Amino acid sequence: MTGRVDFIGAGPGAADLLTLRAARLLAEADIVAHDALVSPEVLALAPRARLIAVGKRANRPSTDQRFITRLIVRLARRGARVARLKGGDPGVFGRLTEEVDACRAAGVAIGVTPGVTAGVAAAAGLGVSLTARGVARSVAFVTPRVARGAADCDHWADAAAAADTAVIYMGAGCAAEVRDALTRRGAPLSRPVRIVENASSPTERVLTGVLADLPTLAEGLGDGPAVILIGDAVAAHAASPAQIGADAEAASAA
Amino acid sequence: MTGRVDFIGAGPGAADLLTLRAARLLAEADIVAHDALVSPEVLALAPRARLIAVGKRANRPSTDQRFITRLIVRLARRGARVARLKGGDPGVFGRLTEEVDACRAAGVAIGVTPGVTAGVAAAAGLGVSLTARGVARSVAFVTPRVARGAADCDHWADAAAAADTAVIYMGAGCAAEVRDALTRRGAPLSRPVRIVENASSPTERVLTGVLADLPTLAEGLGDGPAVILIGDAVAAHAASPAQIGADAEAASAA
Repeated sequence: MTGRVDFIGAGPGAADLLTLRAARLLAEADIVAHDALVSPEVLALAPRARLIAVGKRANRPSTDQRFITRLIVRLARRGARVARLKGGDPGVFGRLTEEVDACRAAGVAIGVTPGVTAGVAAAAGLGVSLTARGVARSVAFVTPRVARGAADCDHWADAAAAADTAVIYMGAGCAAEVRDALTRRGAPLSRPVRIVENASSPTERVLTGVLADLPTLAEGLGDGPAVILIGDAVAAHAASPAQIGADAEAASAA
Repeated sequence: MTGRVDFIGAGPGAADLLTLRAARLLAEADIVAHDALVSPEVLALAPRARLIAVGKRANRPSTDQRFITRLIVRLARRGARVARLKGGDPGVFGRLTEEVDACRAAGVAIGVTPGVTAGVAAAAGLGVSLTARGVARSVAFVTPRVARGAADCDHWADAAAAADTAVIYMGAGCAAEVRDALTRRGAPLSRPVRIVENASSPTERVLTGVLADLPTLAEGLGDGPAVILIGDAVAAHAASPAQIGADAEAASAA
């Protein structure tokens, strides 16, 4: 009986936006250690597994990350097939490195199953492309959120301003700083902005404007995770919701 | 009988790395219009559909794109459920915009089902994260490939150089230009590089080095699609293949 840890992207929220491999590994898992953002519908794909919620709570990130790491290593060493289920893709703002390094150091076999990250799902829901011929040859995924204890520089904004399309994670809570960091680097206040909260879920909401409006738009958000899309490629089209079709209707209704 | 077009991400190559929604839509489709890079295993998920290969051939990209667009609009207007299957994610270097705009202009309902893009799958196969606390707060997906007739500037490299991690699509054929564009913008020649060819497929190959080596590394590639990952977050670990586990073994064996 050999244990292992599979790091699995749970996708952006909708229960049918994780991969076939993810669904198979969840069905086979003995234990699912999942983030707080993973929906009950996704967890239902692991009917035989013991579920352990390891969502990080505010104010105690470091302690909890160490706890998670120790937990998955210990369970795998006892022979369990552990599914470590992370929102979106494990390798995009998913804290994958710490946990993989710990498994490797302990001699625990791992696998990583990629997933659809929130920014990609947000664009799909809007029916827009993050890149577009003649409009956008680059897209940057960035976060202004810093590690506890790290210097709060705004180096992240270099890539966001240089890319034709920027996708900002965990940035809605500091929308004015995001706007200011981008405009200091030459981004025009008229650059199109879409904010998508709870991308791909039934509670998805979309706010549309330009960079100048970003702080005001962000005030209209609820408590759900939000991604900010910025650039000409993601600008709102003139199409009516009926033309956009079912997948974008929830978005357009917001 | 109402036709529609679903733009569907086929994922990076492996038949189990597309989403549950993609699999369901393929099973329900009347017609699947698919890119050349989509594997037979993925196409087998659409047993009742008529398959139409619409891969673009060299030297005639514009003509073929117009042909594809006209084809999917015509089929949907006749009442067909058309699955427009694109490699990776439709919104990341997938030419989504042209086809969505044509459907909207024709009043054809659309949906977009996101997918796992090759760069994300390449990182997963390596067991590395594209972002990492204290190491990488930004990741840029860029291409040096220009549209036919467009000016061949190297503006794309701004985002790749500014981001902590760069993922370069369709760049292996101009590896020296990629290296030079990045070093002109201050990227050190010692920056870690991984090239992944045929990410997630049984023929996946990985080449590892630093930015200075990029042209030499690229000479070792075959004919498959390749992504170039650049940055400290994607550096090779010292872990042995046995520790990395099954999903990364094919990669390590290259």
